Amino acid sequence: MISVTILGAGNVATHLFKAFNKASHVVVKQWFSRQLESVSSYKEQVEIIDDLAALKDDADIYILAVSDDAIAELSRKLPFSDRLVVHTSGSVSVYDIDKKHKRGVLYPLQTFSKQAHLDFANVPICIETIDKKSYPVLKEAVAALGSPLRRINSDQRRVLHLAAVFVNNFTNQLYRVGHEITESEGAEFDLLKPLILETANKVQEYSPYVAQTGPARRHDKKTIKKQLKSLEGNKHHQDIYKLLTESIQKTHGR
Amino acid sequence: MISVTILGAGNVATHLFKAFNKASHVVVKQWFSRQLESVSSYKEQVEIIDDLAALKDDADIYILAVSDDAIAELSRKLPFSDRLVVHTSGSVSVYDIDKKHKRGVLYPLQTFSKQAHLDFANVPICIETIDKKSYPVLKEAVAALGSPLRRINSDQRRVLHLAAVFVNNFTNQLYRVGHEITESEGAEFDLLKPLILETANKVQEYSPYVAQTGPARRHDKKTIKKQLKSLEGNKHHQDIYKLLTESIQKTHGR
Repeated sequence: MISVTILGAGNVATHLFKAFNKASHVVVKQWFSRQLESVSSYKEQVEIIDDLAALKDDADIYILAVSDDAIAELSRKLPFSDRLVVHTSGSVSVYDIDKKHKRGVLYPLQTFSKQAHLDFANVPICIETIDKKSYPVLKEAVAALGSPLRRINSDQRRVLHLAAVFVNNFTNQLYRVGHEITESEGAEFDLLKPLILETANKVQEYSPYVAQTGPARRHDKKTIKKQLKSLEGNKHHQDIYKLLTESIQKTHGR
Repeated sequence: MISVTILGAGNVATHLFKAFNKASHVVVKQWFSRQLESVSSYKEQVEIIDDLAALKDDADIYILAVSDDAIAELSRKLPFSDRLVVHTSGSVSVYDIDKKHKRGVLYPLQTFSKQAHLDFANVPICIETIDKKSYPVLKEAVAALGSPLRRINSDQRRVLHLAAVFVNNFTNQLYRVGHEITESEGAEFDLLKPLILETANKVQEYSPYVAQTGPARRHDKKTIKKQLKSLEGNKHHQDIYKLLTESIQKTHGR
């Protein structure tokens, strides 16, 4: 049995709490949050505290699921040392955790929202530890979630986080542009939803290179010109269209 | 029973043939392709021809599933008149079809690849007709496919096609950039696949505005600066990062 204590009350903390709480080989010892009310609905399931002094020092893993900027300071303030303390950030160095601890990272490569249910079988978790003994402990906890697991180094984590911004945040912004374009001209964004899903489904099996289609891919100058003209009223959308058309043509040659 | 004749041998033509051939209230009368060999594997299921003179003039609908540039000329060359002739393009005017015909559009709002199986329940079909009598005929044929169906006008079609380029082709190019970033630095693109799917799943239920997360959304200047620095070796990726970060911040204010 592995015991974990969770610190933080955001989406990642909440999803990790729910998943660890359900897992059979893990017990959640305590959940720390400065805003008690944000996690109070879970108080029947776990000991909830808002005072760092109340943290017990015998959990196997302390998970700092807090904002990037809060990690270093929170780790320093923990009232114990030599325990395994991990953060969940894609971009913060493992060395930002105070060196009085055994340090590690448990980076879930997924997008979390408070509402949406998330099956951890679809959440690849990348782990990183400094000392050798910490690795099997962290690995056992993550395995209990049923998540795909990879041991990675800091460079790989940095690169994955960067790529995640492209395929998640930037992609979502393209959905937003699609939403603006359709709704502003009396067409239904909903009609695009099956296309959005199929585009994501395709690259589960084929490489994005092979999956590419459309006017830019086939160098269809006439359609590109027409579409750029359609976008004349919105220079910003036009810039995105130009840059990504250029990008596709750079990838696929002339 | 509605009878259709399909002209063309690309992905759209092939998927439409398969779907109409399976539908119970539709019969595919003939399939015309200039390259007989590309459709010859279907010769047991339908009459295949490569000579326009062999086209029978009594199908209810003639579907020109050919490249945009070929529509006008092919419609002119059809050896009959006053039949319902539709094209499948998102960007070509319905008036590009020769005026000797009854004219219409059957625009499937989906991405087609030769290999991937496609359930037409996930292919919204937008239809457009000029004369009133053609509409119920086209509607009945599309309904037989089990597809969601919308009657739209040319402006809405233009806008949907443009938005489709953003959410499909440009999104797929962001997947490609994610692929380049990970693979060039020894990280696994495969780890991003669940995130790609979840991002697409989220907007099935929430608006892209609500679904947005990440460094740009939360104005996390430190992470943005670090990631731009990571991209210093690739100005092109850096430009995409800058423009889409700007776009997110434009949408979500400061």
